[in-house]
Amino acid sequence: MKFVIIGGVAAGMSAAAKIARTAKDPQITVYEKNGFFSYSACGLPYYVGGLNEDYRRMIARTPEEFAAQGIRLRPHCEAVSVEPERHAVTVRDLSSGQTFTDTYDRLLIATGAAPKWPGVPGEDLVGVHTLRSFEEGLFLKEYAASRGPGSVTVIGAGYIGLECADVFLQAGWKVRVVTNGDHVLPGFDPEMQDLAMEELCAVGAEMHPLENLIAFEGNGQIAQVRTDAGVYPSDLSIVAVGIRPNTDFLKGSGIALAQNGAVLTDSFLRTSVPDVYAAGDCATVKDRRTGGQRWQPLATTANKTGRIAGLNMAGGQEELFGAVGSAAVKICRLEFGRTGLGEEEARRAGLDAKAVTVRAYDHPTYYPGTTPLAVKVIYENGSRKLLGAQLCGQKGAALRTDIFAVAISAGMTTPELGMTDLVYAPPFSGVWDAVQLACNAAK
Amino acid sequence: MKFVIIGGVAAGMSAAAKIARTAKDPQITVYEKNGFFSYSACGLPYYVGGLNEDYRRMIARTPEEFAAQGIRLRPHCEAVSVEPERHAVTVRDLSSGQTFTDTYDRLLIATGAAPKWPGVPGEDLVGVHTLRSFEEGLFLKEYAASRGPGSVTVIGAGYIGLECADVFLQAGWKVRVVTNGDHVLPGFDPEMQDLAMEELCAVGAEMHPLENLIAFEGNGQIAQVRTDAGVYPSDLSIVAVGIRPNTDFLKGSGIALAQNGAVLTDSFLRTSVPDVYAAGDCATVKDRRTGGQRWQPLATTANKTGRIAGLNMAGGQEELFGAVGSAAVKICRLEFGRTGLGEEEARRAGLDAKAVTVRAYDHPTYYPGTTPLAVKVIYENGSRKLLGAQLCGQKGAALRTDIFAVAISAGMTTPELGMTDLVYAPPFSGVWDAVQLACNAAK
Repeated sequence: MKFVIIGGVAAGMSAAAKIARTAKDPQITVYEKNGFFSYSACGLPYYVGGLNEDYRRMIARTPEEFAAQGIRLRPHCEAVSVEPERHAVTVRDLSSGQTFTDTYDRLLIATGAAPKWPGVPGEDLVGVHTLRSFEEGLFLKEYAASRGPGSVTVIGAGYIGLECADVFLQAGWKVRVVTNGDHVLPGFDPEMQDLAMEELCAVGAEMHPLENLIAFEGNGQIAQVRTDAGVYPSDLSIVAVGIRPNTDFLKGSGIALAQNGAVLTDSFLRTSVPDVYAAGDCATVKDRRTGGQRWQPLATTANKTGRIAGLNMAGGQEELFGAVGSAAVKICRLEFGRTGLGEEEARRAGLDAKAVTVRAYDHPTYYPGTTPLAVKVIYENGSRKLLGAQLCGQKGAALRTDIFAVAISAGMTTPELGMTDLVYAPPFSGVWDAVQLACNAAK
Repeated sequence: MKFVIIGGVAAGMSAAAKIARTAKDPQITVYEKNGFFSYSACGLPYYVGGLNEDYRRMIARTPEEFAAQGIRLRPHCEAVSVEPERHAVTVRDLSSGQTFTDTYDRLLIATGAAPKWPGVPGEDLVGVHTLRSFEEGLFLKEYAASRGPGSVTVIGAGYIGLECADVFLQAGWKVRVVTNGDHVLPGFDPEMQDLAMEELCAVGAEMHPLENLIAFEGNGQIAQVRTDAGVYPSDLSIVAVGIRPNTDFLKGSGIALAQNGAVLTDSFLRTSVPDVYAAGDCATVKDRRTGGQRWQPLATTANKTGRIAGLNMAGGQEELFGAVGSAAVKICRLEFGRTGLGEEEARRAGLDAKAVTVRAYDHPTYYPGTTPLAVKVIYENGSRKLLGAQLCGQKGAALRTDIFAVAISAGMTTPELGMTDLVYAPPFSGVWDAVQLACNAAK
């Protein structure tokens, strides 16, 4: 059976590996627009910032390993269209410029997402870059090393923007963060956004909320960033203002897309047309709570949906367990984690949501090294069903978010999690852990 | 309504506080054999070892705070009998030696557990001590400070023994651990016991497994510990060979006890006789998995059962969520956590159990500071229902045990937890976290 996979990063290569291990005599081809396969894009900020000097560590499996599994990798090949009725894909070889057609028995769309650009003058200047592909990471590391420590202006205050701010601060750069919003960390509730903003200011980032970008300026190379509130000398500007699914090539294919362009999938990762599957950042994913579809473009989702898509393409009948909106990010000295719904998000979803925020410690003060934790729990009024949780702290906030992620996935209530038999020893946690103090404060 | 509570540590004072907040005009009296109330016994090894210099940090609520809640504390008062038909308790005031009788509308037995003694000559020597009560902690800290750093021989290799070994090693003492078993950390599976043993040896503890204690020797004060394999010069010997429920005074009361002497309770913390409740280390606790009763003498259980007992004594109808055998301990540089059933424990319980142990990292190598994690998952053959998990690592092993504790409490399977939407960011966890790698290795 002939398997074609478009996109060779997390979802695509998870699927390829699963098919290779599961299907009988599969013929697997992976087309990837860029030159690298199976890498962890989440590692790029740390590589660029100098916390990791060996880019090979970000590569989960090498081309040689895939070749040994019989998987054919075609780098620098971009899909330009899909014709489901003919079971055909048209591909452009970016090295030669030539276009060719391949056919499939089963197709996976795993083209990921592309960074958005603000659409202002000067975006083509050297030193103005997004950080998404492996190639961008390699380039940015060299570029930053050759120019820095200097001044960097980060455009956008989401995960990637703030991770970049963090690593450049650590590397001794002057860091400015420009965002048109009034807060950082979209996707978190205001209590957590405030803690993130405070932390960034405390460690010396210059924050510019509520500023509209006007232009990147310079002579061939970035010299300054202009907003409606100021002009910021910059040796480098990293643009991280969001992403959108890479699905333009599917227009006219008949494959159903969500409003934002993500490929609509079902819980088996099938698209609206036979024999075509989708996974990763270009696709929607089953929401565990509602059973509906959501867009959750994260590495975790990409790996899980890729694996299940591969399994089902190879003949399996596996249903995705479902995503609950779990994510974490380190911002300077703080860990931030979120899972489930935010407070407003829950209300917008029509739920009678209540919330409580508790400030506690990661472990009791009778053992050295106590650090504070903020835990916000969002729950349904009446039933006290857990809807979401958001945590911030120096230690253990991310892993504690997983405790909530499991409880939410299992449909537990705040009193249930509040009385669950969690472990306790003074170096690690409280006899009533912060997680439970928050649950038990939910009335 | 008149509430009498026997025992003023974790369970007793949790109940007292809950009753004070919940009942209408309650009259609450707490009889406590020793002089301190509401303390965290788990903090004692760290206090003795010098990691905490202020014993007040271990006191959750002061006598003044309880007085302000209208709770009457009677220290140095030991219950000598209970007569449920008369709703009466006979108490000995240890200060005066006098005995008196009090009556109750509702009684809570929260007398905890007492350390076992090996029963060899020399147990009365100064410098041979158990570490259970607050007074023992206060004494041992002074004694150790006046004698050390010297040589300490720990008898027993459970949580308290190994925590003491850890802190005395840190304080520069020569540490020997003598146990008649062939392993340390009873309650963990052999894979974890081996890691604990290796760690203790690596940091310089002298381990003496499979040795039978013969005597403590010295002239009024401990000088050496004699076993069937050697004689160990000792400035101090800490005896930690297990505990047993403090329930001797209930003989003849008609209150049903388990085989080991623990008070049998139901899921509302009621005993076999009307108006008498029991909680904490002296009582059994509902097992979440089976619905039956187990003995789990830990601070977490004591706090939970105390709270629910108090609520129900005050007229509530709250059922305990149930314990699943969760516990954690720090041994030198390693965290150990366990929850659910061990592999052999599961087989002894008649379950068709399988197990898999995975060695992974706490986070990817493309972010600095990676540390190894060992994760053992015990699951039911066929259904792949999670039965237990045991973890060991330098970072995040205890909190990851909680992820399993919730999953087991919710009745999840290994594929479900393996595909749950956990958080991921390179500084904290893997895109497939070690928890999930272990679950997904379960076939």
